[in-house]
Amino acid sequence: MSWFEQSIMARKGVAGGKALSTHSITEDTQGSYPYVYGAFEKPVLTVDPGAVISAETHDAFEGKIQQETDKPSEILNFPYLNPQNGPIYVNGAEKGDCLAVYIESIVPRGPQPRGTTVIMPEFGGLVPTADTALLTAPLPERVRKLHVDVDTGVKWSDRITLPYEPFIGTIGTAPEIEAISSLVPDYYGGNMDLPDVGPGAVIYLPVNTKGAYLFLGDCHAAQGDGELCGVAIEHPTVTTVKVDIIKNWTIRSPRLENEKFFMTIGSARPMEDAVRGAYRELIRWLSADFGFDEIDAYMLLTQCGRVRLGNMVDPKYTLGASILKSISGASR
Amino acid sequence: MSWFEQSIMARKGVAGGKALSTHSITEDTQGSYPYVYGAFEKPVLTVDPGAVISAETHDAFEGKIQQETDKPSEILNFPYLNPQNGPIYVNGAEKGDCLAVYIESIVPRGPQPRGTTVIMPEFGGLVPTADTALLTAPLPERVRKLHVDVDTGVKWSDRITLPYEPFIGTIGTAPEIEAISSLVPDYYGGNMDLPDVGPGAVIYLPVNTKGAYLFLGDCHAAQGDGELCGVAIEHPTVTTVKVDIIKNWTIRSPRLENEKFFMTIGSARPMEDAVRGAYRELIRWLSADFGFDEIDAYMLLTQCGRVRLGNMVDPKYTLGASILKSISGASR
Amino acid sequence: MSWFEQSIMARKGVAGGKALSTHSITEDTQGSYPYVYGAFEKPVLTVDPGAVISAETHDAFEGKIQQETDKPSEILNFPYLNPQNGPIYVNGAEKGDCLAVYIESIVPRGPQPRGTTVIMPEFGGLVPTADTALLTAPLPERVRKLHVDVDTGVKWSDRITLPYEPFIGTIGTAPEIEAISSLVPDYYGGNMDLPDVGPGAVIYLPVNTKGAYLFLGDCHAAQGDGELCGVAIEHPTVTTVKVDIIKNWTIRSPRLENEKFFMTIGSARPMEDAVRGAYRELIRWLSADFGFDEIDAYMLLTQCGRVRLGNMVDPKYTLGASILKSISGASR
Amino acid sequence: MSWFEQSIMARKGVAGGKALSTHSITEDTQGSYPYVYGAFEKPVLTVDPGAVISAETHDAFEGKIQQETDKPSEILNFPYLNPQNGPIYVNGAEKGDCLAVYIESIVPRGPQPRGTTVIMPEFGGLVPTADTALLTAPLPERVRKLHVDVDTGVKWSDRITLPYEPFIGTIGTAPEIEAISSLVPDYYGGNMDLPDVGPGAVIYLPVNTKGAYLFLGDCHAAQGDGELCGVAIEHPTVTTVKVDIIKNWTIRSPRLENEKFFMTIGSARPMEDAVRGAYRELIRWLSADFGFDEIDAYMLLTQCGRVRLGNMVDPKYTLGASILKSISGASR
Repeated sequence: MSWFEQSIMARKGVAGGKALSTHSITEDTQGSYPYVYGAFEKPVLTVDPGAVISAETHDAFEGKIQQETDKPSEILNFPYLNPQNGPIYVNGAEKGDCLAVYIESIVPRGPQPRGTTVIMPEFGGLVPTADTALLTAPLPERVRKLHVDVDTGVKWSDRITLPYEPFIGTIGTAPEIEAISSLVPDYYGGNMDLPDVGPGAVIYLPVNTKGAYLFLGDCHAAQGDGELCGVAIEHPTVTTVKVDIIKNWTIRSPRLENEKFFMTIGSARPMEDAVRGAYRELIRWLSADFGFDEIDAYMLLTQCGRVRLGNMVDPKYTLGASILKSISGASR
Repeated sequence: MSWFEQSIMARKGVAGGKALSTHSITEDTQGSYPYVYGAFEKPVLTVDPGAVISAETHDAFEGKIQQETDKPSEILNFPYLNPQNGPIYVNGAEKGDCLAVYIESIVPRGPQPRGTTVIMPEFGGLVPTADTALLTAPLPERVRKLHVDVDTGVKWSDRITLPYEPFIGTIGTAPEIEAISSLVPDYYGGNMDLPDVGPGAVIYLPVNTKGAYLFLGDCHAAQGDGELCGVAIEHPTVTTVKVDIIKNWTIRSPRLENEKFFMTIGSARPMEDAVRGAYRELIRWLSADFGFDEIDAYMLLTQCGRVRLGNMVDPKYTLGASILKSISGASR
Repeated sequence: MSWFEQSIMARKGVAGGKALSTHSITEDTQGSYPYVYGAFEKPVLTVDPGAVISAETHDAFEGKIQQETDKPSEILNFPYLNPQNGPIYVNGAEKGDCLAVYIESIVPRGPQPRGTTVIMPEFGGLVPTADTALLTAPLPERVRKLHVDVDTGVKWSDRITLPYEPFIGTIGTAPEIEAISSLVPDYYGGNMDLPDVGPGAVIYLPVNTKGAYLFLGDCHAAQGDGELCGVAIEHPTVTTVKVDIIKNWTIRSPRLENEKFFMTIGSARPMEDAVRGAYRELIRWLSADFGFDEIDAYMLLTQCGRVRLGNMVDPKYTLGASILKSISGASR
Repeated sequence: MSWFEQSIMARKGVAGGKALSTHSITEDTQGSYPYVYGAFEKPVLTVDPGAVISAETHDAFEGKIQQETDKPSEILNFPYLNPQNGPIYVNGAEKGDCLAVYIESIVPRGPQPRGTTVIMPEFGGLVPTADTALLTAPLPERVRKLHVDVDTGVKWSDRITLPYEPFIGTIGTAPEIEAISSLVPDYYGGNMDLPDVGPGAVIYLPVNTKGAYLFLGDCHAAQGDGELCGVAIEHPTVTTVKVDIIKNWTIRSPRLENEKFFMTIGSARPMEDAVRGAYRELIRWLSADFGFDEIDAYMLLTQCGRVRLGNMVDPKYTLGASILKSISGASR
């Protein structure tokens, strides 16, 4: 028996975490790719809990950066960036529920070199930006086009090859009344750029509006902690997820479960507020579902909590706080 | 041949990273334990490069919190906290050099329960503090006294035991003209509370003044990322280090090397500035010593850099940014 | 001749800053009050440049808090807060233009006590919030209902009366593709809570989408710097503004002009980024339109720039940076 | 009767705020100017409460930048910056007391052009710095030497003259056990760069150690809010202050009183923490000495508090929060 059968998704989901139907979203059936997370967008697919959905994702630049001589500032047209698949309307999902999304697989698609990373003006962790506005000149633009392959990884240079460790950079539900750019991460998910959101993980998302409106896109072939220059190894994929609903499980921000740990995810500025948000939510989780009192959980996480930096470049920074199942499962 | 023989300390140190003499600092020979990092303090020991030094460290509360009914706010006397061993004067160290410190071992000492963690007012990551001053009431104080043992670990509760994973919470050199509280981390080291500073690692510290003035203390038996409530499993130890000098290697902030990776350490507020500082220093290192151009290093770390959160509770937050030796060593 | 005739609005506006038509938005003609800034909302009024518009604004709680025994957490229904008038579609406004809004008057309306301020959970500058998530308990809720009058001011207590110094807390245009909560301030204006946005001032707003879509509401009878507890003296009003378009004047964030100074407005977290954004925009303005070189403007503002803190409680903090007309007008 | 006779200094000071003796510190009697705040420094003067002291201050560069062709990065020798007068030992001052310092006058001295402002690398509010470490290149260095005169002001250019509005950039007491660079502002005062600290104001400083150890220096001829590029109009002066002790008035950070308002001063990063610290201290003051309950003070300051930005460039940012005497004096 795999760990998944003991997951919250499998134990509490309306469909018991089981695969009950299969669907696909191709470039054609998607049509135009949305750039905002909101229930204003018309669903491209409506499914029941238990649906397995394969989606043809674009890279964050919609494939427009094709060679190393391209100039991002001339090709890209802000705010039309980070195109998403969806929204997917999930029958039965209502405000106050939780949408569980198990990530089955991410497979690269399209011709080589299919990986892209760039330096562009006013974006990145070590340069002046629109948010941290300074007077000094930007770095020169630079484009790298890279060979990306499941087996051979990401070829950086003659000497350096990075393993293919794909994940979903942007995934979430619609806010209740807003429509927010897919460049933003927040309590509903969005552009978290957190490498733990990869194959084999379940991400739990708050349902803010009837039907949940699941969006996803922006898959990365590899990414370091922080996504330092702002652009990971972006690439187009076929991404397959399974969705389920956990009724009346009201969470304030995304949570994640995999074989090893439970994680909560915070997005905020400054960065300490993102960590605070993640850790407080983890304490509340330990307190609500694992038999800890809040102060005991606070003191225990002081000794064994783990923090993963997702991005330090988006409009909000994202970090995950986690505890090993071997510890939390033991309870107090 | 161990990795250490290929370390920067072994290759570039005046003593070749070798053990040439042995010394000890006991509670008696230490006498009073300093609470500031500065060259105003009189050295308790003077050594040559190649010295191996064993020091009897106190816990951060100087052993004053002895039972779970103790009330930290009544017992502790701010700013007389976090007592240090040292300073150790290292012959031949001059401003602009680097002090290399290999951590050989950390062994708990003293009667059980020798581990201590507490909740105290105005301190911690999820409460109002002196720095983040709010109007809401503090949490109630709480003290945990814990059995700490090398083999059996840290006994948290009947069901939860954490492994003994010790490290040095506070270590550094004297600033050039200042004397700074041992509660503070900064460019010279200090109260970084970064779990990577443990046995088997070399930490590289900037020498700011003749003799370097090495201080260390505040060893933790276990700690999670961020040291969330502000107090890890504090415990008294015998800590053994080996010191060497790398002449004319001028670094802006602490660096670390172990078998697996190279790390730079940043301390600042807000937290993003600590990450920026660490990553920029890593880029400069890759550029100066590993044959990368700065922009290439920036883009590469975007794909494979790793970030470890040390503390999110001290006057400055501390994070380490690292790259695997398997990648950096391959160069471009 | 008044200063207004020399204002940018009067000199560059399509309508020359003149009043060419008059309009009103009553509670009836407004119908439902929007809670988001976005072009998804249907305009309640369409006007030409030169329009003078009087709008019946609600207070930020839509009048639901009526007595001091009311409990905000029970009455208020997040995110349905901060109802706005509009949107107003302005003919001829296109992306890249600037919408100039001269604030003619703000007059309180409705029965006494018509002023409201409250303490509510998880909101305010000196308490844990959703963004700065801590474990400590919130402050007890409290409601003050206050007599507000143009002539006699705001009666705080038997001994303390504050002058009536009204301004528009929330005003802005629609983002290009998003629909953002009216609780948020950003580059398009929104919930800035900056007391300078009052009668006698012109605010310049970026036009992000055809028709501009002007929203406004949330008028305050008095407010200190920072809007410390999160809720100023909220009150319903009749607010009268005059609008004009400045073609092809592309600004990145709101600017303001009154008899005495030119101001740029920044909204961001952490607070230093809001100041940076405001000051950089002011430097660019001085450089583009007043004959300064950027570095000279930077050095001059170091000696004479002024900063006003609007809010330190909203999802982004807002500050204005300004320079006296007596200085900037003198040029170099 | 002047307002000063009703000041806290005059009402509660050991010397009743009166001038009982006069002293001077010349360049000669000062000898070497200290660069740290700490009780390690030997006092250059010992006085009783009621002492009036005139000190010959240097500018922040100790007069080394003499012409516009000078290059700060070559001339300045970090950390030997911001030389101070003092320390002055005040008889009778003990930990837990308050040192009251009335600023009588600041008069420029030395040959013209005696004012200096510069752009230097890694320092300033709109550039990458040691704290906000980025990869982009610094601005080119620039030096301005300016004519500074009490009557005719600061001549910026042919068209722009700024009024002479001098204040003390750096003033404070020694920390209890530390010795901190005079570039830093904190709870004991230091490099606050807050323009309200000028002639006619009383600044109240916490006494942390026997004798208080008063330091001062770094007078500015003019400065905008934030000291944007990091360097105001620096100039040498004769600065005259009167000191007194208020026994057992324990304050956590500097406070200020002038004819119009009471102010508390906070220094921290990020900037919101400096405002929080200042406002919380003001609430505690209103609660302890003016008959307000804390929550009422919190709500009242929301409506009428004022915030002044001192610096946004030093190792901690400094802001003052104030309330008009006309309001606070009326009490509730």
